[in-house]
Amino acid sequence: MTHETTPIRIGIVGYGNLGRGVEHAITQNTDLELVAIFTRRSPESLPTTSKVVALDQVLEYKAKIDVMILCGGSSTDLPEQVIQLATHFNTVDSFDNHGEIPAYFAKVEQCTKANQTLSLISTGWDPGLFSMLRLLGESILPQGETYTFWGKGLSQGHSDAIRRLAGVKNGVQYTLPIETALEEVRAGQNPTFTAAEKHQRVCYVVAEEGADQQQIAQEIQTMPNYFEPYHTTVHFISEEELKLNHSAMPHGGFVLRSGETGNGNQQHMEFGLKLESNPEFTASVLVAFTRAIAKMAKEGHIGAKTVFDIPLGYLSPKSPEQLRAALL
Amino acid sequence: MTHETTPIRIGIVGYGNLGRGVEHAITQNTDLELVAIFTRRSPESLPTTSKVVALDQVLEYKAKIDVMILCGGSSTDLPEQVIQLATHFNTVDSFDNHGEIPAYFAKVEQCTKANQTLSLISTGWDPGLFSMLRLLGESILPQGETYTFWGKGLSQGHSDAIRRLAGVKNGVQYTLPIETALEEVRAGQNPTFTAAEKHQRVCYVVAEEGADQQQIAQEIQTMPNYFEPYHTTVHFISEEELKLNHSAMPHGGFVLRSGETGNGNQQHMEFGLKLESNPEFTASVLVAFTRAIAKMAKEGHIGAKTVFDIPLGYLSPKSPEQLRAALL
Repeated sequence: MTHETTPIRIGIVGYGNLGRGVEHAITQNTDLELVAIFTRRSPESLPTTSKVVALDQVLEYKAKIDVMILCGGSSTDLPEQVIQLATHFNTVDSFDNHGEIPAYFAKVEQCTKANQTLSLISTGWDPGLFSMLRLLGESILPQGETYTFWGKGLSQGHSDAIRRLAGVKNGVQYTLPIETALEEVRAGQNPTFTAAEKHQRVCYVVAEEGADQQQIAQEIQTMPNYFEPYHTTVHFISEEELKLNHSAMPHGGFVLRSGETGNGNQQHMEFGLKLESNPEFTASVLVAFTRAIAKMAKEGHIGAKTVFDIPLGYLSPKSPEQLRAALL
Repeated sequence: MTHETTPIRIGIVGYGNLGRGVEHAITQNTDLELVAIFTRRSPESLPTTSKVVALDQVLEYKAKIDVMILCGGSSTDLPEQVIQLATHFNTVDSFDNHGEIPAYFAKVEQCTKANQTLSLISTGWDPGLFSMLRLLGESILPQGETYTFWGKGLSQGHSDAIRRLAGVKNGVQYTLPIETALEEVRAGQNPTFTAAEKHQRVCYVVAEEGADQQQIAQEIQTMPNYFEPYHTTVHFISEEELKLNHSAMPHGGFVLRSGETGNGNQQHMEFGLKLESNPEFTASVLVAFTRAIAKMAKEGHIGAKTVFDIPLGYLSPKSPEQLRAALL
């Protein structure tokens, strides 16, 4: 399958859900090799059989790693770590704070250009695959509308908001696309939606003993921005049921583009994801793009890149000849 | 929207359904300009208000056109025309003879390298968008299966086969994906299908007066390769009904990838198209890739390319900055 003879050497920075996903995804690709996981925690405390190294020793690996995958969070870890690491390594990250992407890109662009490194920012599925499909949709059907729906998916931010309420012991929140809205888009009606017309929210809450469930439900449903604008359903369940049925991290969603060509012919493009594990899928996307960054760095590319800058062929272990013969 | 100041100058070679689709698609993009349509027919015979030029005068346009879109057929037109035209122009085509793509690519690669031109071959939706999605699927989820379904779509080859039968005045054939097969794939069962288990064929036939309809139906249903392996339904209708209900050229289909990550988590990616006009949508894809080829040629790229070689950002009239801010 692969035309590379020496494997691409990868480092992982951070070992949360995403880092663990990357660790596993690398094992699914014979042309990739995990060199080490870097952590700010005590290395021996990580529950893994992979090599673990303290993050402050990372520079010892400068000649031993082709690409570092940054698996920290977007709010505090990545903005700080990306500069430290891109100064010395090629990097791939999943920075997903949409509004701050331009500033983040500028910072990484400056650092990588100065240090002759190559960094791909903001990959995964949104930003990432969904962004690519939004671009394809509007470029191919300029006269049309794009819709992005998310879910069914566990939202970390909304789950946290529930858990901060008095009387709440534990809880999770799922975002669900509203099926009738999806159907209107698929029917080519190019509808205009409020936020509440596209998504609904469903919460599973474990209340403290003796807590007023009716009051908790009301506090959730009236919470500004988070829940108030949406149709929100609250279910009270036991801690056991929460563990049993709501420990997975499913997600997914749809990017739809409905447009018109010629004399009013309706054309519809749709991309959908149904994921049993959001972090493992995101990790798999990061790993494929890591292959691309390794190949591009080898060819001499430097600077900051996004998914819009990567020819898709670089994502595959197959050679251009193999791709043309087998996949085109 | 656009950051180009002078429009990209485009020529169209061939004025069948695809050429007409390209002519219209260009009008939907303010950064693109149609310079002329080139034809082997008598120029004044083309039913269009665009400028039409005899194909044998094409060299007079060498400095006036950035990219030529070749809209001929894959069996005889393109293999001949691509070399004539790529010797002098950057080109985009929709060569869709899957088995012969490697040989076609090699020929175009040699011609473009020798003449410092740039040619994108085999774009459209399959080969094209579907190829890109197949590549994304197997690169992101290496442990999994890819499925391509086509339809509901009018098949030109199968319609021709019907029309050649004695007693048949006219007829069309639709290929349909079998819904239960699609559902098995979506359920993550990674099934193995025969051709007949994925698609069925539905024919609408206008019989000559006095022809034996039962015999025609049997000849269709037992035609080797074309129909015999499939569940084939034959409906007899009037010429009027055929014109009224079966003159459009709908098509579409699905690329699905079902894979597994981590400890058995199922992940599902799906891309679907529902097209009221196959040639107009194909034309819209060609036009977006024409923009990419114009930009890449301006940057000095030469040689033969496929959709696997084009960074998606080039497809958009927006600048990289605009794309990062608005679409990522």
